Amino acid sequence: MSHKLSKIVKEIGIDFHGDDVDIDGIHTLSEASLGQLSFLSSDRYAHDLPHTNAAAVILSSKYLNLVPKGTVALLTDEPYLKLALATRLFRYSPSIEIAIPKKGNNCSIAENVTFGKNVVLGDNVTIMAGCYVGDYTMIDSGTIIYPNVSIYHHTLIGQRCIIHAGVVIGADGYGYAHRSDGRHTKIHQNGNVSLGDSVEIGANSTIDRAVFGTTTIGAGTKIDNLVQVAHNCELGENCLLVCQTALAGSTRLGDNVTMGGQSGAIGHLQIGSHATIASRSGVTKSLAGGKIYGGFPAVEHTVWLRMQAKLQSLIKKRKD
Amino acid sequence: MSHKLSKIVKEIGIDFHGDDVDIDGIHTLSEASLGQLSFLSSDRYAHDLPHTNAAAVILSSKYLNLVPKGTVALLTDEPYLKLALATRLFRYSPSIEIAIPKKGNNCSIAENVTFGKNVVLGDNVTIMAGCYVGDYTMIDSGTIIYPNVSIYHHTLIGQRCIIHAGVVIGADGYGYAHRSDGRHTKIHQNGNVSLGDSVEIGANSTIDRAVFGTTTIGAGTKIDNLVQVAHNCELGENCLLVCQTALAGSTRLGDNVTMGGQSGAIGHLQIGSHATIASRSGVTKSLAGGKIYGGFPAVEHTVWLRMQAKLQSLIKKRKD
Amino acid sequence: MSHKLSKIVKEIGIDFHGDDVDIDGIHTLSEASLGQLSFLSSDRYAHDLPHTNAAAVILSSKYLNLVPKGTVALLTDEPYLKLALATRLFRYSPSIEIAIPKKGNNCSIAENVTFGKNVVLGDNVTIMAGCYVGDYTMIDSGTIIYPNVSIYHHTLIGQRCIIHAGVVIGADGYGYAHRSDGRHTKIHQNGNVSLGDSVEIGANSTIDRAVFGTTTIGAGTKIDNLVQVAHNCELGENCLLVCQTALAGSTRLGDNVTMGGQSGAIGHLQIGSHATIASRSGVTKSLAGGKIYGGFPAVEHTVWLRMQAKLQSLIKKRKD
Repeated sequence: MSHKLSKIVKEIGIDFHGDDVDIDGIHTLSEASLGQLSFLSSDRYAHDLPHTNAAAVILSSKYLNLVPKGTVALLTDEPYLKLALATRLFRYSPSIEIAIPKKGNNCSIAENVTFGKNVVLGDNVTIMAGCYVGDYTMIDSGTIIYPNVSIYHHTLIGQRCIIHAGVVIGADGYGYAHRSDGRHTKIHQNGNVSLGDSVEIGANSTIDRAVFGTTTIGAGTKIDNLVQVAHNCELGENCLLVCQTALAGSTRLGDNVTMGGQSGAIGHLQIGSHATIASRSGVTKSLAGGKIYGGFPAVEHTVWLRMQAKLQSLIKKRKD
Repeated sequence: MSHKLSKIVKEIGIDFHGDDVDIDGIHTLSEASLGQLSFLSSDRYAHDLPHTNAAAVILSSKYLNLVPKGTVALLTDEPYLKLALATRLFRYSPSIEIAIPKKGNNCSIAENVTFGKNVVLGDNVTIMAGCYVGDYTMIDSGTIIYPNVSIYHHTLIGQRCIIHAGVVIGADGYGYAHRSDGRHTKIHQNGNVSLGDSVEIGANSTIDRAVFGTTTIGAGTKIDNLVQVAHNCELGENCLLVCQTALAGSTRLGDNVTMGGQSGAIGHLQIGSHATIASRSGVTKSLAGGKIYGGFPAVEHTVWLRMQAKLQSLIKKRKD
Repeated sequence: MSHKLSKIVKEIGIDFHGDDVDIDGIHTLSEASLGQLSFLSSDRYAHDLPHTNAAAVILSSKYLNLVPKGTVALLTDEPYLKLALATRLFRYSPSIEIAIPKKGNNCSIAENVTFGKNVVLGDNVTIMAGCYVGDYTMIDSGTIIYPNVSIYHHTLIGQRCIIHAGVVIGADGYGYAHRSDGRHTKIHQNGNVSLGDSVEIGANSTIDRAVFGTTTIGAGTKIDNLVQVAHNCELGENCLLVCQTALAGSTRLGDNVTMGGQSGAIGHLQIGSHATIASRSGVTKSLAGGKIYGGFPAVEHTVWLRMQAKLQSLIKKRKD
C-alpha cells in the first residue's frame, strides 16, 4: 500500500510545499526507511530526528532546524493527531474474504476454521474448531492452535507453539491521539505480532499487534492465562509470564525474565535478563537483570522485605 | 412478557391479599413504572419507597407505613431472596433459534456468524467469523465486529464502534441472594447493554448486562483488553479504561475519566468527569472530577506521593 | 493408555534394572495407584515416599533408602525434568476428530457446535453457537453453555450449571520443568476439571485442568468474569470468586469462601470455610475459616485497618 505524499497531507490537513513522493508506510524516526513517513511528538525522541531516513516528518516548527536534508517537514501544532489521521490511510481493513491456506504435510484443520487470504501453514499444524486465522499469517510446523483462537492478519507463529483456547493474537494496540475537545482519535495499528518457536500462550490471553513494526515474543517463552502483552512489547527467550500479568506498550524484557501472577509493568521500560518480578508487583522504572524485585513501585525484593519489617516494627512500637 | 401478580406471589411464596394486576417487569423503587414489581432490601433505598410508581413492592413489614397508596405491599422476612425468585419469572431464556437479520447496505457478514431473531444491522457493518449476535440486538452503521465476539440479546451498539476478538457483551451480571443455608440464588439479569457511537472495546473484555435497566458505555469511550465492566455501570463519553481494569456494579463515571491499567473501583460509586485514576489504584469511595488519584485506597495522587515519601523517610531514619 | 516401564525409561534417559511392568499413568506419591509412575522432586513430599503405591518413582539417589519394597527407583539428578519428559508419553493429543454426542431428552444444541468423541449430555442441556466440547466430556441435565465456550477433553460438568460466553475449561495448567540451560520443558497436564451442580462461571474466565487428578469446583460455587483458577485447585461448595480473582495452583478453598474482586492467592494454600478475602487482597499463607482478611500480604481485616490507621497517624504526626 502506498500513497502520494500530496494526498496524505491533504487528508490530514497540513500545508505542503516541495517535491511529491510515494509514501509506503509510517514508522518511528529511528526505524523509518527511505519511502516512509514519520513524526515527532515528544522531546524524548528529538535526538532521532537529525538521523532519520524518513521521506517526510510530521512535527512542530520548533524542531525545524533538526530536520535532515532531503526530508520534507510537515509542520503542525498537533503532530500526534496528524499522525493518527495519517495512520488511517495505511490501515488494513478487516475483511470477510476467505481463502484456502497453503498447507504443509499432515496438517489437521477442523472443518469450521476460517482462513483469510495468503495464509501459510507448515507441516503437522493442528488448528481446532472455531479458530480464525487472518490474512498473510504464517504458522510454522508442529504448532497446535486450540479452539476459538483469533489470530489477526500478518501474524507470524513459530514451530511447536501451543496456543490455548480463546487467545487473541494481533488485535489492535491501545493507541489514540487525545484531542483538545476531549475526543480520542484512533492511531491505527499497522504493525504485527511475531512468536518465536516453542512459545506457549494460555487461555484467553491477548497479544496486541504493534502500531509500527512488530510485537515480539521470543522463542521458548511461556505465557499463562489472561495475560496482556501490549503493542510493541519485545520479550526475549524463555520468559515466564504468570496469570493476569500485564505489560504496557513498548516494554522490553530480556531473556528468562519471570513475572509473577497479577504483576504488571508500565510502558517503555526495560527489564534485564534473568530478573524475577514477584507476584502482584508493579514495575514503574527499568530494572537491571539477575535480581528479584517486589512491591509497588517495585524495588529489590530484599529491600521490600526490609521495608515491610520496619513498617511492622514502627506500627507495633508506637502507642497511639 | 407479563405475569399476573397472583401467579408471581404464588411462585415466590408470599401471601397476597388485594386486587390482582398484570406485572410486566421488575425494577428498582425509583425506576419502576406503573405495571412493574419492585423491592426494598436495604435501608439506603427506603427514601425511594414513598415515591415509587411500582404496582407492588417486596419488603419487610417494618417499612409498611412508607408504602404509597395504590401500591401492593408483599411482606416477607427475606425480600432479596424473594426478589431473586421473582426475577426468574421474567428471565429471557437462552435459545438456539436462528434467523436472518435485517441488514442495511453494504454489510460484510462472515458465513458462520450466528444471529438470533430480530437482529437489525445498519449500513456498512462488518461482522467477522465465529461471532454470535443475540436476539433483538441492534448494531448501527459502520461498526466492525472482529472474530469470535459474543453479543447477548437486546444489546444496542452505536455507529462506528470497533469490537475486538473474544469480547463478550451482555453476559449476566454477578448477582445472587445469599440464603441462610449458605446457597446463592441467582438474580436473573433482565436488563441490557448499550454502547454509544465510536466506542472501541479491546480483546477479551467483558461488559455485563444490567440486572434491571441498562449498562451504558458513552460515545467515544475506549476500552482496552481484558477489562471488566459490571452490571449497571454507567460510563460517560470519551472515558479511557486501560487493560485489566475492573469496575464493580452500578459505578458511574463522568466524561473523560481515565482509569490506568490494573486499576479498579468498588460498586455504587461516582467518579467525576476528567478524573484520572493511576495504574493499579483501587477506588473505594466516590471521587470528585478533574483530579488525579492513586494508591489503594485511592487518594489524591499528590497526597499519595507525599505519603510514600514520608514512609520512606520514616523507615530510613529509624534504627531497628 | 499404558507404556512398558522399559520404554519410558529409555525415552526419558534413565538407566533401569529390574522387572519390566506396564505403567498406565503418572501421579503424586500419595495418590499414585499400583500401576502408576511417580516422582519426588522436593523435600516437602519425602514423607510420602515410604507409603507410596507407585510401581516406580523418579527421584535422586539421596532418597533411595526411603523407597518401599516392590517400587522401582529410577535414579536421576534431574527428577522434575525427567518427570516432564515422562508426562509427554501420557499426554492426550489434541484431535480434530468429531462425533455425535449421546444426548438426553430435549437438548438444544446450536448447529455449529463441535463435539469430540464420546461426549455425553444429560436432559435439557443447551449449548449455544460456536462452542467446542472435547472428547469424553460429560455435561449433566439442565446446564446452559453460552456461545464460544471451549471445553477441553474429559471435563465433567454437573446439573444446572451456567457457563458464560468465552469461558475456557480444561486448558493446560501452567507447569514446566526449568532446565539448567534456561529452557522450560512442558509438564503435560494429564488430569481434568470437574464442576459440581449449580456452578456458574462468568464470561472469559478460565479453569485449568489438573496436571494429575482433578481441578474441582464444588456445587453452588459462583465465579465472576475473567477469573483464573489454576491446575489442581479444589474449591468447596458455594464459594464466590469475584471478577479478575486468581488462584494459583493446588490452592484449596473450603465451603462458602468469598474472594473479592482482583484478589489473589498463591499456590498450595488452604483457605478455611466461610473466610472472606477483601477485594484486591493477596493471600500468601493458609488462612483459617470464618474470618475476614485484607491487604497484601493478607492479614485479618481488623488488623489491616488498624495498621492503615497507625500508618496514617505516623505520617501525620511526624514533621519531615
